[in-house]
Amino acid sequence: MSTLNVMGQKAQQAGYELATATTSQKNQLLTLLAKGLKEKQTAILAANSIDITAAQEAGLNESLIDRLLLNEDRLNAMADDVLRLCQLDDPVGEETESKVLENGLRLSKRRVPIGVMGVIYEARPNVTIDIAALALKTGNAAILRGGKETINSNLALLTIIEEALVEAKLPSAAIQYIENTDRALIGELLKLDQYVDMIIPRGGKGLHRLCVEQSTVPVITGGIGICHLYAQADCDLDKSIEIIHNAKVQRPSVCNSLDVVLVDSDIADVLLPKLAARLASDDVLLKADERALSILKPLACRVEPIEEEDFDTEWLSLTLTVKIVDDIDAAISHIRNHSSQHSDGILTNSLQSAEKFVNQVNSAAVYVNTSTRFTDGSQFGLGAEVAVSTQKLHARGPMGLKELTTYKWIGVSDYLVRT
Amino acid sequence: MSTLNVMGQKAQQAGYELATATTSQKNQLLTLLAKGLKEKQTAILAANSIDITAAQEAGLNESLIDRLLLNEDRLNAMADDVLRLCQLDDPVGEETESKVLENGLRLSKRRVPIGVMGVIYEARPNVTIDIAALALKTGNAAILRGGKETINSNLALLTIIEEALVEAKLPSAAIQYIENTDRALIGELLKLDQYVDMIIPRGGKGLHRLCVEQSTVPVITGGIGICHLYAQADCDLDKSIEIIHNAKVQRPSVCNSLDVVLVDSDIADVLLPKLAARLASDDVLLKADERALSILKPLACRVEPIEEEDFDTEWLSLTLTVKIVDDIDAAISHIRNHSSQHSDGILTNSLQSAEKFVNQVNSAAVYVNTSTRFTDGSQFGLGAEVAVSTQKLHARGPMGLKELTTYKWIGVSDYLVRT
Repeated sequence: MSTLNVMGQKAQQAGYELATATTSQKNQLLTLLAKGLKEKQTAILAANSIDITAAQEAGLNESLIDRLLLNEDRLNAMADDVLRLCQLDDPVGEETESKVLENGLRLSKRRVPIGVMGVIYEARPNVTIDIAALALKTGNAAILRGGKETINSNLALLTIIEEALVEAKLPSAAIQYIENTDRALIGELLKLDQYVDMIIPRGGKGLHRLCVEQSTVPVITGGIGICHLYAQADCDLDKSIEIIHNAKVQRPSVCNSLDVVLVDSDIADVLLPKLAARLASDDVLLKADERALSILKPLACRVEPIEEEDFDTEWLSLTLTVKIVDDIDAAISHIRNHSSQHSDGILTNSLQSAEKFVNQVNSAAVYVNTSTRFTDGSQFGLGAEVAVSTQKLHARGPMGLKELTTYKWIGVSDYLVRT
Repeated sequence: MSTLNVMGQKAQQAGYELATATTSQKNQLLTLLAKGLKEKQTAILAANSIDITAAQEAGLNESLIDRLLLNEDRLNAMADDVLRLCQLDDPVGEETESKVLENGLRLSKRRVPIGVMGVIYEARPNVTIDIAALALKTGNAAILRGGKETINSNLALLTIIEEALVEAKLPSAAIQYIENTDRALIGELLKLDQYVDMIIPRGGKGLHRLCVEQSTVPVITGGIGICHLYAQADCDLDKSIEIIHNAKVQRPSVCNSLDVVLVDSDIADVLLPKLAARLASDDVLLKADERALSILKPLACRVEPIEEEDFDTEWLSLTLTVKIVDDIDAAISHIRNHSSQHSDGILTNSLQSAEKFVNQVNSAAVYVNTSTRFTDGSQFGLGAEVAVSTQKLHARGPMGLKELTTYKWIGVSDYLVRT
């Protein structure tokens, strides 16, 4: 039996035990995990420094190295996040749609853990703790596979997790880590449908595509945000410029930041110069289509003509694609063709336009006069965020604890037969 | 562009239009479809007789030919089923979890169609109408691929569907059919994730496995029921025998019928002879493990020793696997290893045993003192049944209209930025 098959079998077994753990057992476990993160920092930081040295020797850039870096503050923040999870309601066990049928059969849908999650992620070591804590809070087992740049940090964190599990008298195989950094193991994990119930990829487009193409386990795809705002002719110009500025500039490196602004041709002459001036102070590079370029070129702003891929690019930086459209139908059609169905919005004071946009744009989050930056588990009041799904089955948009559960139907009667 | 790519593109476009169709438009469409099925029977039956003749010439067995056969009664029943769908609530547009966040952002989850369904099914032509009507009621487009034995019947039914769509002024590409019966086309459909949002296979284990292994589109697996009842020591013997009899005999050819009975060793000596006598009247063949065989062999019943695959076989016939287990833990463990997670139940008067079983057996439907035959959309009061899912993401157990929808988050504010 392959290593991964053994891990899968152990994870499934651990999942059975976790599924019947009480909320207080699970919260005690999380408390122990937070304690471990605060008390055993020397060992974690020593392991992390090996990763950091290797990264420096490999010539990784500063921002990547910063993502790998752990320090006391960061470990304390991770521990505090774990403790905050204790405060959240445990979704497991909730019953919905309970009813007694005409024949006397008492039927209910009970929320239960999914079972075993497979999570594939890239550099940041904090994801290891984040995912482990979310999985355990919802009674799920998990098999993790992090980036090779953080292998030492991740294994040190796994030790803390395992110690907490043992101390809480829960199965230590509840969270397992694939230590072999060979990429072939990802392929094996994706075929482990006998034991793994859900794959969550957390990384770039390539990783998501790999999972979609190779996995026999259901995959939650998402995290890629090619986000649009359409400034309709009836929008409030000054307020709309603030929304566009916020969506682009407030935190450009994340998936819900703005990538493309579509401007109605009726207001382009007025809006674009004002917008360019507002964005110039943050040194935003505009990539403009031909019509927008003719307005922006003479102005004192950074502007370039668009290139072929620009309508399908998630910038994750201070770059913004600008296109002029003739009407709302053109805007909706552009969004349907180019959006990653993450977060798209309209800026308008027209009720009809807002309704039409909301009805016809089918993205995970659709906004009216609101920054796309709000698509986020904590902003949405979910308490936690596992991932942002841009697919349509199971969960859409920010996924919280509930989205790590499924349900079973329970039927109870006094020896009822079907006639 | 391949034929299937063109179909996918058309289906996506039709889905956009259907998504904003009103409930009365969709009900009018269903009414026209039912009318077509009643009024245009000559053409449908002529096409069907070509399929029947071909099946007879190919030497298909009687029961398969019966599944292919259409006649006036069957067409009228199909039309009546379509009309009944009009009476059901349209799930599209319902908003849940609406709230106003502290910052004033008004947020809601709105139920919307999934988009485009791909459905792959085997012999019965009634599935064509069934799936088309369910998809249209929920505002989804669909691409269908039926068995080659029913190609003429299906194409005749497609004509009726298209005529109804045109008359209702809805896009005729809302329901498309893959006319080419080459199996390679199934492979192409499964890779059409650019346009298709969900694959529903309706057929045997081989078809489901093909979809799981090849599809890049999320798949709803299910329909395979290896169902168990565990007769615990504290059960009411006579009533338990009636439940087992009902679950096995009432309609053995369907997925929720019983396949394996697990009998507690404390009651095996008493229960098995009574059970054998009750099942003998229906000529049920028992496949018994060694311990059960020693009890059953001397009795006047049809009994054989179990073979290797019997614990993992969905009988779909009057055969029942019988195994003696030492306690509830052994029963749960057996079910976890062999169940297809469709429908499993316990027979007991012990509250503790019932609770334990319900908590530890994680199947789509878990029963206490109830026949497994109840796992069914209409029995569960869902009004309709698209499929029975045995996977854990999206939907579990009988899937009704709601399970053909997803949701989008809608955020509305007065030009709110994230700080």
